[in-house]
Amino acid sequence: SVMNNEKLIAIIMGSDSDAKVMAEAVKQLKAFGFECDIQILSAHRSPTFVADYAKTARSKGIKVIIAGAGGAAHLTGAIAAKTSLPVIGVPIKSSNSIDGWDSLLSTVQMPTGIPVATVAIDGAANAAILAVQILGTYDNEIASGLDSYKQELQDKVLAKNAKISEIMAPFLKEKE
Amino acid sequence: SVMNNEKLIAIIMGSDSDAKVMAEAVKQLKAFGFECDIQILSAHRSPTFVADYAKTARSKGIKVIIAGAGGAAHLTGAIAAKTSLPVIGVPIKSSNSIDGWDSLLSTVQMPTGIPVATVAIDGAANAAILAVQILGTYDNEIASGLDSYKQELQDKVLAKNAKISEIMAPFLKEKE
Amino acid sequence: SVMNNEKLIAIIMGSDSDAKVMAEAVKQLKAFGFECDIQILSAHRSPTFVADYAKTARSKGIKVIIAGAGGAAHLTGAIAAKTSLPVIGVPIKSSNSIDGWDSLLSTVQMPTGIPVATVAIDGAANAAILAVQILGTYDNEIASGLDSYKQELQDKVLAKNAKISEIMAPFLKEKE
Amino acid sequence: SVMNNEKLIAIIMGSDSDAKVMAEAVKQLKAFGFECDIQILSAHRSPTFVADYAKTARSKGIKVIIAGAGGAAHLTGAIAAKTSLPVIGVPIKSSNSIDGWDSLLSTVQMPTGIPVATVAIDGAANAAILAVQILGTYDNEIASGLDSYKQELQDKVLAKNAKISEIMAPFLKEKE
Amino acid sequence: SVMNNEKLIAIIMGSDSDAKVMAEAVKQLKAFGFECDIQILSAHRSPTFVADYAKTARSKGIKVIIAGAGGAAHLTGAIAAKTSLPVIGVPIKSSNSIDGWDSLLSTVQMPTGIPVATVAIDGAANAAILAVQILGTYDNEIASGLDSYKQELQDKVLAKNAKISEIMAPFLKEKE
Amino acid sequence: SVMNNEKLIAIIMGSDSDAKVMAEAVKQLKAFGFECDIQILSAHRSPTFVADYAKTARSKGIKVIIAGAGGAAHLTGAIAAKTSLPVIGVPIKSSNSIDGWDSLLSTVQMPTGIPVATVAIDGAANAAILAVQILGTYDNEIASGLDSYKQELQDKVLAKNAKISEIMAPFLKEKE
Amino acid sequence: SVMNNEKLIAIIMGSDSDAKVMAEAVKQLKAFGFECDIQILSAHRSPTFVADYAKTARSKGIKVIIAGAGGAAHLTGAIAAKTSLPVIGVPIKSSNSIDGWDSLLSTVQMPTGIPVATVAIDGAANAAILAVQILGTYDNEIASGLDSYKQELQDKVLAKNAKISEIMAPFLKEKE
Amino acid sequence: SVMNNEKLIAIIMGSDSDAKVMAEAVKQLKAFGFECDIQILSAHRSPTFVADYAKTARSKGIKVIIAGAGGAAHLTGAIAAKTSLPVIGVPIKSSNSIDGWDSLLSTVQMPTGIPVATVAIDGAANAAILAVQILGTYDNEIASGLDSYKQELQDKVLAKNAKISEIMAPFLKEKE
Repeated sequence: SVMNNEKLIAIIMGSDSDAKVMAEAVKQLKAFGFECDIQILSAHRSPTFVADYAKTARSKGIKVIIAGAGGAAHLTGAIAAKTSLPVIGVPIKSSNSIDGWDSLLSTVQMPTGIPVATVAIDGAANAAILAVQILGTYDNEIASGLDSYKQELQDKVLAKNAKISEIMAPFLKEKE
Repeated sequence: SVMNNEKLIAIIMGSDSDAKVMAEAVKQLKAFGFECDIQILSAHRSPTFVADYAKTARSKGIKVIIAGAGGAAHLTGAIAAKTSLPVIGVPIKSSNSIDGWDSLLSTVQMPTGIPVATVAIDGAANAAILAVQILGTYDNEIASGLDSYKQELQDKVLAKNAKISEIMAPFLKEKE
Repeated sequence: SVMNNEKLIAIIMGSDSDAKVMAEAVKQLKAFGFECDIQILSAHRSPTFVADYAKTARSKGIKVIIAGAGGAAHLTGAIAAKTSLPVIGVPIKSSNSIDGWDSLLSTVQMPTGIPVATVAIDGAANAAILAVQILGTYDNEIASGLDSYKQELQDKVLAKNAKISEIMAPFLKEKE
Repeated sequence: SVMNNEKLIAIIMGSDSDAKVMAEAVKQLKAFGFECDIQILSAHRSPTFVADYAKTARSKGIKVIIAGAGGAAHLTGAIAAKTSLPVIGVPIKSSNSIDGWDSLLSTVQMPTGIPVATVAIDGAANAAILAVQILGTYDNEIASGLDSYKQELQDKVLAKNAKISEIMAPFLKEKE
Repeated sequence: SVMNNEKLIAIIMGSDSDAKVMAEAVKQLKAFGFECDIQILSAHRSPTFVADYAKTARSKGIKVIIAGAGGAAHLTGAIAAKTSLPVIGVPIKSSNSIDGWDSLLSTVQMPTGIPVATVAIDGAANAAILAVQILGTYDNEIASGLDSYKQELQDKVLAKNAKISEIMAPFLKEKE
Repeated sequence: SVMNNEKLIAIIMGSDSDAKVMAEAVKQLKAFGFECDIQILSAHRSPTFVADYAKTARSKGIKVIIAGAGGAAHLTGAIAAKTSLPVIGVPIKSSNSIDGWDSLLSTVQMPTGIPVATVAIDGAANAAILAVQILGTYDNEIASGLDSYKQELQDKVLAKNAKISEIMAPFLKEKE
Repeated sequence: SVMNNEKLIAIIMGSDSDAKVMAEAVKQLKAFGFECDIQILSAHRSPTFVADYAKTARSKGIKVIIAGAGGAAHLTGAIAAKTSLPVIGVPIKSSNSIDGWDSLLSTVQMPTGIPVATVAIDGAANAAILAVQILGTYDNEIASGLDSYKQELQDKVLAKNAKISEIMAPFLKEKE
Repeated sequence: SVMNNEKLIAIIMGSDSDAKVMAEAVKQLKAFGFECDIQILSAHRSPTFVADYAKTARSKGIKVIIAGAGGAAHLTGAIAAKTSLPVIGVPIKSSNSIDGWDSLLSTVQMPTGIPVATVAIDGAANAAILAVQILGTYDNEIASGLDSYKQELQDKVLAKNAKISEIMAPFLKEKE
């Protein structure tokens, strides 16, 4: 199985201000038992390093690249331009973005030939799950981990549903 | 290598009115040497069949599911809810959609736990390339095919650049 | 009259984070003398339970289903796909939504055949009133309750209008 | 059963330019065996008639009112202000509207107390189905008709799926 | 001159939650020497009173009506439907509105025949100035007051420009 | 009465490409018996002439200025900056505008002190009616003309309503 | 003067489908007496060539770079990342873009440090004028050419204004 | 070299409420060694002064004008209408703007003939860098300063990347 220590997934962010959002991807990957290679690389400020990273990623054993950026979010596109690995884009609703609309459109509206697998705005945890799903395509152990996770998601909803009265109570109190 | 006749990729559309857009995915896959399993399944009109397809897809050998829908595009989400395979979503700008905004947001803004790898509006060709990239994660032959494709994309741009005068000519003619 | 203890109206929410918004529906229904069946069911995390609930709702005596969800809000559509009861959708402006635009479009832009009666963003109280209006279609006692409510709404506005000077006063104070 | 000749459903449009869209509601109702009372009434040009119609609708036997309008679409709200019957709103993408955004927001974003059950932009057929669902709340014959309709919807999708190759063929032809 | 005590301008708001915004109109009118008739009237909750007020406004000496509302803001349209006086609309960004977009579009996108003179979102002060400009059309004293106001606006900008260094200073301080 | 030959209303457009839209204002004014002073003046291409026109308009007998422009529509604001007459803005959905959104926001979102009375996108006819309403503020003959117009609007709707079957007929024909 | 044959301005487009829009820049530059260096270079398909062009542009005598692209328009940003020359961005409303919103936001919302001078959607002619204004900063002959152009713009508006009756005539004809 | 004490760059803002945003431009210019001429001039409140400043700017030695405004942001356009110097526009997300959309569209969507070089919403620092890039077009010392700045930007990203573990640490801590 690939579920070992080598880093199969890269997590790249355009700025340290994206660290909080992207940490959700790191944590989600860890929950699935994956380490990742984390980088701060900017499509506009350190473009050569972005290109170099993308070009050499496959040969270094990386299988999937997750990248997150805000505003005119070119990072995912710049990476996708230089690798044939799947690239997952996280549009980030940064303080510089216009409510995330710019980040979303800059990430998802890629031209034919260069796809970016875009997840929800600030959806770094989902980017991690998608990366694991990709790894799980040919790996039964990973697939089985994903199925367990899916079961847990459902169990949590069922558990909440079981204590619905308790959950609703604070909102149903009379107020003046 | 996986580059054989078995169908590793499913292409699902919500309605036959999506056929024209989704045909681009079929053609792009064929160009990479992949057959695909094509289905019309509606999240709202044939929901049981969507759930059944999604649940059994992995066991039937499907590795990646591409799904396209317009308007309140729930198809990709309904599939992703029932499988741990990677699901690629194509938001379709149908006659019923509000310029594609509804399709895009309904496809990409998925809750934590259930990612959909969203491509551009009407971006079915890119969905196909992304699917091949996913298959190429562990397959050198496919990866090599993708690299060749990337090279071709660049060569085509260079070829156009080489005849730029010719391309500009009709637009530079004097008019009154 | 149907104004008795049996639960004629279901209130379903996609997550416990929707509880605060959906509590407004519960409170509004209680004000009209209706109990309701409250559930946390997720279109993506517990899809089988959503389908089961929707399929069996009519036979259990449910007359109207109110459902609220945020982001790519598929819950109402998933329910409407499985029942011919009227389904009322509350688009929720959750922290994950892009200002409610995604929730609204995912809820309202349903394809032909599967309507969702959509109310305003976070409009759970109105969803409750609409549900009562539906029950009141064939029930004069309920209709009469709705007419009284309408009268009260007007009376409240008239009462406020009567003390308009008092209401305006704090905002008309001079400041530097 | 209520499935007889009396007109239980009203269809109101703001202008004759809305007739084409609203005709879909009439046709859908007819398919379910319902006649309807069709009116052109304008919230802005014939407001007294709108108010009168709304006030007297229940006493004339109307159970549900469907109203469609474009631009600053106040018609549904003006009706809802004057009746406690359920009012279904169809936002119309008229030549005067800004791509339907104004019609949608003017119809759906109603204040607490006065709900409008909003369907998709130009979704008149769904408004009709929703109206029938409301009538079906207490009528098993209607409910049964709706279930058959739902089955037909699914059958049509399955039929299309069965001839998917035929449907895709024209789009898969080689072109230069 | 009309600059006396009779109330020539009405200020109507849909709810007491609009009082803070609309108070800016009252204050601006007072600065020009005009009293106004302030009302809370709701297009949806007290529609008869809206219609009555609008119908009788001209005969009571009102010359211009300013109305402000949020969400599906029908108040201005409902008034304009019932009077041939100029009606000025203030779209209000209330907590129920979707960032003011719904209020703006519901107010400005009126059908041919029934104009509403729309000002900026929350632009109640400008509504007041516009009302005074309308009164000033045939009144030299008012016109002259408006010219003085315009001069004052310019003088304030010039005064600020004169102390630009002072204004910029706090923002130009070095920080770590 | 002011209903004579002198030109009380100015109609200004930013470009001859706006002529078709603004002609609706001219025609509507003529229907009310008003001549108007028509100008092509550009805020960006002939700014001095815009300023001069605005500054001298009142002294030339102009009572209301209607201005229409598209894209970054500064024309109305530039006029309003130089006159205390009421200025009515028509946002134009020109080929250069982004669906009219830019024209609308550039026209309506004016800063405090300088209102522009904005009508619907391409709503030149309504601009004309609003101008006449302003003139009618102190003129009973004009007011009476407006009341007749309002009556005619209603009569037309009633007439259409009377032949509703005829209007619906072409859309209700069976098709395959 | 710099007004000679050497190419001081580069015009780069992401695809030959942008040729029609970008030709407006070429024509406008020619009208000012400037030749330009035209290239088709894609940020995603030929990224190395974009980087190389940008890096060497200054040393080859280029003073300003105009770049146009549609959708997730990264071309201008990719160029700006690699040169300290001023880069002018033309957001293009291509068939792949969502009404130009994606192109606009991807071009203008650049992060601090890497500006792109963005003009209107499809505003290639203005990009050319801006480039000439930049060259004119230190060149009186160019500045004088720009002043003449500005004068011509005004003269054209004045000429149109002089024949306003003729321009309006076709739109003022009576029709039934 | 031009890098001396004379003021080559003007910074104009529409209101003192824009001072905080525009101060970023002043600080960025100072970092490059440039003084600037700062003005508060309003397109709507002090239009004559705007026109005068723009007309005389070139003769006073100004090479580039940076202007920032919010809402219906006409300031940049009003300046561009009166000078052939390059004008850089900063759309400001003021409390009066609708999330910056109005400021952005009013600034960027200029008609042919009158470009405004628009930067990101609140992007005053980038406006400053663009101004310096323009000055650097013909000045090697400035160009060299820009290249150093670009290098510093990259170095900062690399430095952050080097301590990525430290940056991520606070976000990766376990919480309940």
